[in-house]
Amino acid sequence: MMSQAHPSTSPHAESWVFGANNPDLGLPLQHLPYCVFQSIDSNQPHLGVGIGACILDLFVCAETGLFDHIPADIVTACSFPALNPLMDLGPKAWATLRSEIQALLSTSTPLSSDRRLRTEAALVTAREAIFSAPVFIPNYTDFYSSIDHAERVGMLFRPDQPLLPNYQHVPIGYHGRTSSIVLSGTSIQRPKGQSKPVRSEAQPGFAPTTSLDYELELGLYIGQSNPLGTPIPIERASSHLFGISLLNDWSARDIQSWEYQPLGPFLGKNFATSISPWITPISALGPFRSPAAPRLHHLAESLPYLLCRSDQHAGNLNLILEVFLVSLEMKKKSIAPVRLSRVCARDLYWTPAQLIAHHTSNGCNLQVGDLLATGTISGPDHASAGCLLELTSNGTQPITLPTGESRAFLVDGDEVILRGYGEASGHPRIILGECRGTIHSG
Amino acid sequence: MMSQAHPSTSPHAESWVFGANNPDLGLPLQHLPYCVFQSIDSNQPHLGVGIGACILDLFVCAETGLFDHIPADIVTACSFPALNPLMDLGPKAWATLRSEIQALLSTSTPLSSDRRLRTEAALVTAREAIFSAPVFIPNYTDFYSSIDHAERVGMLFRPDQPLLPNYQHVPIGYHGRTSSIVLSGTSIQRPKGQSKPVRSEAQPGFAPTTSLDYELELGLYIGQSNPLGTPIPIERASSHLFGISLLNDWSARDIQSWEYQPLGPFLGKNFATSISPWITPISALGPFRSPAAPRLHHLAESLPYLLCRSDQHAGNLNLILEVFLVSLEMKKKSIAPVRLSRVCARDLYWTPAQLIAHHTSNGCNLQVGDLLATGTISGPDHASAGCLLELTSNGTQPITLPTGESRAFLVDGDEVILRGYGEASGHPRIILGECRGTIHSG
Repeated sequence: MMSQAHPSTSPHAESWVFGANNPDLGLPLQHLPYCVFQSIDSNQPHLGVGIGACILDLFVCAETGLFDHIPADIVTACSFPALNPLMDLGPKAWATLRSEIQALLSTSTPLSSDRRLRTEAALVTAREAIFSAPVFIPNYTDFYSSIDHAERVGMLFRPDQPLLPNYQHVPIGYHGRTSSIVLSGTSIQRPKGQSKPVRSEAQPGFAPTTSLDYELELGLYIGQSNPLGTPIPIERASSHLFGISLLNDWSARDIQSWEYQPLGPFLGKNFATSISPWITPISALGPFRSPAAPRLHHLAESLPYLLCRSDQHAGNLNLILEVFLVSLEMKKKSIAPVRLSRVCARDLYWTPAQLIAHHTSNGCNLQVGDLLATGTISGPDHASAGCLLELTSNGTQPITLPTGESRAFLVDGDEVILRGYGEASGHPRIILGECRGTIHSG
Repeated sequence: MMSQAHPSTSPHAESWVFGANNPDLGLPLQHLPYCVFQSIDSNQPHLGVGIGACILDLFVCAETGLFDHIPADIVTACSFPALNPLMDLGPKAWATLRSEIQALLSTSTPLSSDRRLRTEAALVTAREAIFSAPVFIPNYTDFYSSIDHAERVGMLFRPDQPLLPNYQHVPIGYHGRTSSIVLSGTSIQRPKGQSKPVRSEAQPGFAPTTSLDYELELGLYIGQSNPLGTPIPIERASSHLFGISLLNDWSARDIQSWEYQPLGPFLGKNFATSISPWITPISALGPFRSPAAPRLHHLAESLPYLLCRSDQHAGNLNLILEVFLVSLEMKKKSIAPVRLSRVCARDLYWTPAQLIAHHTSNGCNLQVGDLLATGTISGPDHASAGCLLELTSNGTQPITLPTGESRAFLVDGDEVILRGYGEASGHPRIILGECRGTIHSG
């Protein structure tokens, strides 16, 4: 007997919600990203799900009995103003809730007029929403999974050995700072810091950074913990992943390059990391998977703890990601944001499952809500570089904006916008929630 | 008019509690470290203060009206089973509570017989206590503030340039992992991980670490936050520090040395960090302060944001710290733990206030309960090296235990014990809470 997909989850299913079938919004029935938001009428943040031009208020759904068919612990989790309790319930609960929401919103599900009315009452216009942090993030780890980024940055600082010997074996990562993670739209203060002395016997400088950069990244949200001392095997790593979002790991290159030896980046990074308010669940990404990236040669084949057939087959994410910039002068002249680069996440050298398996291979415990970032995502060609460090060759080859302004690094007033989407034949387009930030002087 | 110290806070004041005047316990009226503990009679963890052989149960003090003279928010904070709410109230509240506790416990304060009886009823024998985490730790940062450690480790790996050019200017630090911070006494599982291939063209190994090490450190607990974007000036940095404790940042040297380029230590560290259950408040450390360490030459003078007169005068901690080891065989033969090293924290190149000022100099926000560790504390001579990496020259010169066993690095069954104390003429001795951990196989 062939298994049959539920009608509301088929790639052809449509929603009756306004805008749900508009590919420019990228919020069809098959997407359903999560957020925490506050509407004008409400004085409390609620969990929500994006659909077309609207947000389905999960708190209201729970309160008005729309979720009476599903287990009570899921309903309780929907009333909490952060995703952590829902995450903690595990993949089966995530699937149950998603399927219930799809049934409520689908044109192909017969809905009683009463249920339809209550669902409509739980919908809020997305434009009127004010967002807050979707997840309490206990720990933040940033990886370095783009080999093109690692190689191009390495070329700038170590032309004789751009790629270090460990790169092809170890998913390189380091711990980031959770306290300075901010929501898209929060303005970013130009940090001050030490930079390398001009002459080796001089004192270093201390001033606002002159090489402020963005980093185009994907954030991976951990939905399931593991106990300290118990690694997550690669075969089960995917089930620990709840969802993804766009992330900008702002970097001060002068501070970073002076401080990072021998213990890695610190103040060059921890002044701010921006995240999108929207988290796209992993279950929405099925049509946008691609094989793990090939290894450079047979000796670079990954160690067994990083290898499993399903991950090699479809572990990467076939998502297009873009960086846009709009300067103050462009805004004044109503010039639209200019695209600085475009890259596909499928070029990442390490898959999300490999990052999880590696992170826990020493017994390190991941916690519900932990954020793992991919590191700057760059592609093989120059136009797909995910940061200015690469695009301008460390500021030596500035880029030109439509106004004629040039940029080696970011100047005050610049707004950086990260966008991303998934396209696959026979499937509706999904668009990831944007991640924005504008630089202001310290 | 001369200012007069409160009789209960003078260096000669004594407590009536059993053991309080015993210098071998190091818990006089002038110390009063905090902990969170559970007594046999209680089914809930309570905040406590160490005095002699006892713990004063602050929850019971609050419940029985002993704190009725002090502001209600302090009393409420005393009923919470972690220090964070008390920390959040700020230095004035910390001083009020400390002085009230000293008045209850001092022989020089006239106490009504009813108050004395209630205070006695709030005392628990320390030996019967089970400890839990004293603080919820939102973020953990590990520094590298011992120049002797940096230089000796540098000598092992870069004999031509042991001290990197940034060291004398930048208080080097990196973010650690909070999820794997464990309490003293928790056994430590030997982590598995990748290590450098034997030949450059071979595959790396993946196995339990063969170079498991301890690191003798002090943990500094942040009691006051700063908003994102607002640095803490060096002049006010001390007021953000609540207290200190012993900390062991376990390290797998083979994993660390293979993974750490270019983003710093990760899996070589994040499998476990042990902390003492006891936090010694900064206010107890007045007699044990010492000047900031001298700079190596005039060009290494610190930048202005790291300099202030009071910190230069008395910013360091004059505390003696020791590492002991006891092997399984030593335990079987009832041989006492052997001291591996002894060091004075006053040799640290950066003061706690400098670490705080530097950490926030880019606008990074510290949160209440954040843990900043000093990094391995080593002194100028070999016998004061704070880790086996230095003591055994990366395992090449093993040390010999009293049983005749040799140790290049830790073996399963080894227990490492960190101890520390402060001694100053005319002041009672204080002993920091121990930090222990025993290695077991993975």
